[in-house]
Amino acid sequence: MSRFRLRFEKIKDKYDCIVVGAGPAGLTAALYLARFNIDTVIVSKDIGGKMAVAPLVDDYPGISEVPGVKLVELFTNHVKKYGVPMIIGEAVVDVVKEGDMWCIETEGGRKLCAYAVILAIGVEKRKLGVPGEDKFIGRGVSYCAVCDGMFFKDKVVAVVGGGDSAFSSALYLSTIARKVYLIHRREIFKAMPYYIEKAKKNPKIEIITNTVITEILGDKKVSKIKVKNTITKEEKILDVDGVFIEIGSEPPKQFLKSIGLELDENGYIAVNPDMSTNLPGIFACGDIAGGRYKYRFEQIITAAAEGAIAAKSVYEYIIKVKQSENNSLK
Amino acid sequence: MSRFRLRFEKIKDKYDCIVVGAGPAGLTAALYLARFNIDTVIVSKDIGGKMAVAPLVDDYPGISEVPGVKLVELFTNHVKKYGVPMIIGEAVVDVVKEGDMWCIETEGGRKLCAYAVILAIGVEKRKLGVPGEDKFIGRGVSYCAVCDGMFFKDKVVAVVGGGDSAFSSALYLSTIARKVYLIHRREIFKAMPYYIEKAKKNPKIEIITNTVITEILGDKKVSKIKVKNTITKEEKILDVDGVFIEIGSEPPKQFLKSIGLELDENGYIAVNPDMSTNLPGIFACGDIAGGRYKYRFEQIITAAAEGAIAAKSVYEYIIKVKQSENNSLK
Repeated sequence: MSRFRLRFEKIKDKYDCIVVGAGPAGLTAALYLARFNIDTVIVSKDIGGKMAVAPLVDDYPGISEVPGVKLVELFTNHVKKYGVPMIIGEAVVDVVKEGDMWCIETEGGRKLCAYAVILAIGVEKRKLGVPGEDKFIGRGVSYCAVCDGMFFKDKVVAVVGGGDSAFSSALYLSTIARKVYLIHRREIFKAMPYYIEKAKKNPKIEIITNTVITEILGDKKVSKIKVKNTITKEEKILDVDGVFIEIGSEPPKQFLKSIGLELDENGYIAVNPDMSTNLPGIFACGDIAGGRYKYRFEQIITAAAEGAIAAKSVYEYIIKVKQSENNSLK
Repeated sequence: MSRFRLRFEKIKDKYDCIVVGAGPAGLTAALYLARFNIDTVIVSKDIGGKMAVAPLVDDYPGISEVPGVKLVELFTNHVKKYGVPMIIGEAVVDVVKEGDMWCIETEGGRKLCAYAVILAIGVEKRKLGVPGEDKFIGRGVSYCAVCDGMFFKDKVVAVVGGGDSAFSSALYLSTIARKVYLIHRREIFKAMPYYIEKAKKNPKIEIITNTVITEILGDKKVSKIKVKNTITKEEKILDVDGVFIEIGSEPPKQFLKSIGLELDENGYIAVNPDMSTNLPGIFACGDIAGGRYKYRFEQIITAAAEGAIAAKSVYEYIIKVKQSENNSLK
């Protein structure tokens, strides 16, 4: 059960809307729901999402060079001002329909029901799973070139991956860093051809194929990586100041499918432009939301905007639901 | 010519990207373009867009209760930090294709060219055009219930209009204000039936049809409106503390069509999820952007997010364009 739950907070078992997740999408959804006078509760396993682990954020307009944890605090205080209760420290493990309500259950066994649920649970970036990776997160290891690239001016960095994000990150980093290794475990890339061609021509980018990172080394910050050729089995050490891991994300497909949600080909929830899903009453926003109407650009500002849109849609949805309830009671 | 142009700013005649407009969408686009190392200039008739006239903003997550002008300053300083030149005070009057570049011309006769242009010019809210309207903007007259509704707790307000925005505003305001007049010049409403039904049942909402406001009165703030029945010609005075004008927006259709842009049925630029338009190299974001992929919710946070997405798309676009240029030079 939650160590973090706000004290003295009276938690009811029924709300108009439950927001699952407390990253920029979930917190903004809650802020807007409160402004729409929708009776709302936030339930989340943690607070801030990926924003909380960003060493320094400089791409949230209007707030210059702010540590991620500080930005989380600013968002959270903004929501708290509107009196939205938050249950933090409890992951949601089940979402089921009961009558005209959606009910969630947390790992702690708590059950809450509401007319609408906003899923803003984010996605975990896929990790390499090598020694040193966790230790150096925010100290040389990053999962977002656009967010953290600026810290590597005239330095040497490695990008791991073979898809669009890896190439896009390598190209972007080549405009900042002195040298960029692009390390891919296979010979063939999934990235778009124009990315590959562009990277191959870029004198700052050295592409290393059939190679994996086996360890990330350093003292206080990353200084080296150990790499291994998967064919020759040859190992060597490269001096780098940063490692950008771009090998995709892991949406919790089984959990989402068990709710009955329609997913896109990458396993993200397929949302309409208004953040509604195939299930009336379930909305999604932020990194977990996908589908053909969404151009994927995982930023704090885009997640927050989707949260605002989801809140507006919930507001519209609840007006309708309550009206038809009133009608059926007549 | 501009009185506001930053001094000592050396303006070139060719950039990689020109951002037209300096509201939240344009400023965020410029911030992200600068972070992508895209050589960018902002050209705008004013700075801040509608954000600049908001008395107090409390729906931009992380920045609580901030005057609109202050938020404009925070956004602007954030962009300036990245050294993006700004030409403020010059409206763009023409956008034409010249070779592989798009060139803009300002009312002052300045001409600038770039591979990509982001149109973030906003839209003017349609005005009633009655005495007192301009005088009381921000002092009782508002064009955004979600933004300014909070100032009217337990007060009496009037909403003008007969469409979804008018009804949605009236319903929202009924949760805050003591009484809401919904004033519409016709007998029939364009709004969705469930909105109309909901408003008719709401004891706080009084619907007044076939009626127009002829004058907004007050001393320092709005205190009364003069209304006139369009059939009986009868005039009367209503005591109100606020007037919310929700009679639509005026996108500059002729200007947009003259560029060759595809518009949606309301006259907004039809954008794809990545904010590209039917014209390669022209992108749009913020209130001027529309089309079937976009759920319209005109907020600072949503405009800013669209700006970030447009910048990402311009970055991808410019990589491609420069690459094909290099290829054709071979």
